[in-house]
Order: sequence, then structure tokens, then C-alpha cells
Amino acid sequence: MIDLHLVGIGTGNPDHLTRAAIKALNRADLILLPRKGADKADLADLRREICAEVLEHPGRIVEFDLPRRAGDQPYLGAVADWHDAIAHCWRRAIEAHLPQGGSVALMVWGDPSLYDSSLRIAERLGAAGLPIRTHVVPGITSLQVLTAAHAIPLNRLAAPVTITTGRRLRDEGWPEGAQTLAVMLDAGGAFDVLDPDGVFIWWGAYVGMSEQVLIAGPLADVAHDILDRRATLRAAHGWIMDIYILQRLD
Amino acid sequence: MIDLHLVGIGTGNPDHLTRAAIKALNRADLILLPRKGADKADLADLRREICAEVLEHPGRIVEFDLPRRAGDQPYLGAVADWHDAIAHCWRRAIEAHLPQGGSVALMVWGDPSLYDSSLRIAERLGAAGLPIRTHVVPGITSLQVLTAAHAIPLNRLAAPVTITTGRRLRDEGWPEGAQTLAVMLDAGGAFDVLDPDGVFIWWGAYVGMSEQVLIAGPLADVAHDILDRRATLRAAHGWIMDIYILQRLD
Repeated sequence: MIDLHLVGIGTGNPDHLTRAAIKALNRADLILLPRKGADKADLADLRREICAEVLEHPGRIVEFDLPRRAGDQPYLGAVADWHDAIAHCWRRAIEAHLPQGGSVALMVWGDPSLYDSSLRIAERLGAAGLPIRTHVVPGITSLQVLTAAHAIPLNRLAAPVTITTGRRLRDEGWPEGAQTLAVMLDAGGAFDVLDPDGVFIWWGAYVGMSEQVLIAGPLADVAHDILDRRATLRAAHGWIMDIYILQRLD
Repeated sequence: MIDLHLVGIGTGNPDHLTRAAIKALNRADLILLPRKGADKADLADLRREICAEVLEHPGRIVEFDLPRRAGDQPYLGAVADWHDAIAHCWRRAIEAHLPQGGSVALMVWGDPSLYDSSLRIAERLGAAGLPIRTHVVPGITSLQVLTAAHAIPLNRLAAPVTITTGRRLRDEGWPEGAQTLAVMLDAGGAFDVLDPDGVFIWWGAYVGMSEQVLIAGPLADVAHDILDRRATLRAAHGWIMDIYILQRLD
């Protein structure tokens, strides 16, 4: 039997780790650490740093190359194929290093529940016949780090919040009835499709990391600053992760 | 100058605390600990337990009685008055115990960004002339503990999520366009207003605590179980906190 622990680690600052996450990593027989290719090398480095900082008795850390998602297919199909390929990598590593079973931990950026594939990949392992039990250790999401950095609540008083993706915002515009909108996984400036009048934005890049950059203001005033800054940062670091909250003020 | 640290502590399990939360509590000159009255005594006890477990050099912990919200006024007005009254309590305690300024920490259930009043109360202190800087340390929310306990993702693949309150669900029904709905602060069974056909529910009470109870299934099959269980648990413990996710399957 394999006990798979999906451990939320927050957004790159080892201080985001919970006591439960540190315990889960320390108890694991095997920690799988994905390498994402040179352009995102700092992310694998961050996971290594976290291990170096919190593991009392470093167990067996095994690195593997994360397959790349095909860019030439329709989005959902490409994602499904990509998850299949990652499940295959996990399985190969688990069978090679834990032939008798045991506990495996994977460090998941943010929280495994929010725009993360680990639970779907774990499900594939079970469906493929690997005897597996999946456990989740929640982690701080980039959305929480963003609201903390701006010191703002996510919801207005007793009001709802919609969390969506840059792709959805670009394709479908402002969701019907939403007042507060948190946008994740934006490949770049999807807010450009909106009429900015009366919309306020709180934006952050590399939230929680030493490179963190924050901008907030009326969308009409700061949209350009954000797009410029995003392009500059991306060029400087070779990659960018950003997130934002939009709110209609009325 | 007062540095106010709003420290998210998760949902009652000391293992939900992040390293950042533990550091913030240990560095505070003053920790304010609210007492919520006998019926919620276990919550003040939990905060005391967390202090006992993570403070290396217990600083000055000051308890204060949290005012009660008036039940006989329109909701938003009652909440505003209640926040004024709490701000007054914070201010009195801070001025009494930190007359020269310093750092104050408050332990916030879940995360200060999500359906929590602390940021709005802190704003009142600044508006009333107290020289204050507010810092937020994110914490694990009950929503993340719920998804972790059920080992489910919150969002469907690349799809949006709406977070709302029991009150909204009861008054306005299923929000237009939503597929996944997380419901917090439900005073009891607001899902009763929905046509349960094709809706799945993942419910949890006391999530993350030793008393945790989970139920999941088609809403049509389990709605009654949940309401029965909720009433029994509430009677047994004297209080209940529960949360759920609803998803339309199609």
C-alpha cells in the first residue's frame, strides 16, 4: 500500500509551511521533487531549500523531470494528456524507490485544492491499479498571500466571492452577478477585456517571495503599469507568477 | 506606533499554524485573546492551548470579553455596531497594556481575509486616530481543511468557484452561472432551499478538530442525515461550525 501525501507548501517562502506540512515531509519514506525545466529552475530550487530547511532527517528525495504540456492541442485535451504523463512519472518513481510500499510526499505549490492537478493525477494512479491512499495537507494559497500582502479582506461584508482563471475572464468577461473576482493562472493581462470604469484591482507577482511586487489602484489608472511591470519582471526572472483581485465599487 | 499582527491560526488544530504565525506570536509584546462567552468556551480554550504549545517565552496574554452582536436589528447594521464595540475593546486593552506602543497579535480563526472582521475592526482603530500599522499572517481556512479532509479539489478542471454565505444561499438561491459553490457561515441547512437534483455535497463540521465529522453524497440522499447530525452535534457540544461545498454535476 502507498500512502501519498500531497503537502501544500504555500508560495515559496518556507515560513508559509504549517506544522502539519513539516511533520508530513519528515515522516515520508520518499519525497518526489519535480524539475520543471531550466526556465522555472528557481521553483525546483525553492523546493530543495524547503527540504534543506525543515527536514530533520533528510529521507530519500528523488527528483524527476516533469513532462511538458503540449501547446498545439485544445486546452482541456492537452491538460488530460499531460496529467496522464505525470501520473506515469510518479508511478515509475514510486515503484522504483518504494517496491514494498510506504509513504510518499509531494510538495504542492499553494494548496492542493485550488487550481492544482495533484489530486487528479493521484486519482489516475488509483484507477491504474496502484494500491494508493491519498492524504492532503492544506497549504497557504497565493490568493491568501496576496490579500495578506495588501492587508485587505477577500470578501466585502457578508458578500460572495468568485475565483476564476485568466482564460475564463478573457473568454467570458466579467461573470454575471459577481462583485469580487479573484483571478488566477492568467497568462497575461486578461483584465484588458474589461471596461475598467469603477473597477479596483489589487495585483501581486511572486507573492510571498523575496521578489514580491504589489500594485493596487483603480484599474483605469494602473492597468498599463501592471502590464509594463509584468513584462519587465518576466524578462528579468525568466518566468512570472501573478494573481489579482478585481472589485466593482458601487 | 502600534504594529497589529492579525495571525491566521487555521481551525483549531495547532498543526495548522504556519512557521510565520508561530514567529509572529512569539515576537508580539501583547497577545489579545477574546473570550466569547460560556457557550463558545472551547474556542477560547483552543487559543490558550495554541499559546501554551507554540510560545517559547510566553509574553503578555490579555483576555477580554468579546461584545455580543445585537440580534434584534437588521443584519448589516448590527454587524457594524458590533465591530465598533470590538474596536473599542481592542483599543482599551492596547492603551492599557502598551501605553508606549509596540506589537500586538490577535489570533484569527481561519484566515483574516475570508469572512472575518478583524481587518475591518483594525481599520476603525486607525480611523479613530490610533497610530497603527496592520500586518496579516495568512492562515489555513476551514474551506481548505474541508477539501483536504475529503481529499477533493475545490474547482473542477480550469473552472471557477463561488464562495458565499448560508444567508445569501437562503435568500437568493443558487447563484447564476455557478457550478461549484462553497458555503460558509450557514446558521443551518440553507441548502434546503435548493432543488437537490443533480447536486452533490461535501459537508464537514468542526473540520480539523478532534470532533470532525464528514458527510458526502448526492444532496437528495444526504441532506436529511446532515441536518439530523448537525442538530445532534450542536446539542452535544453547545456550538457548531460547519461548512460545505455544493457542485452541480452535468
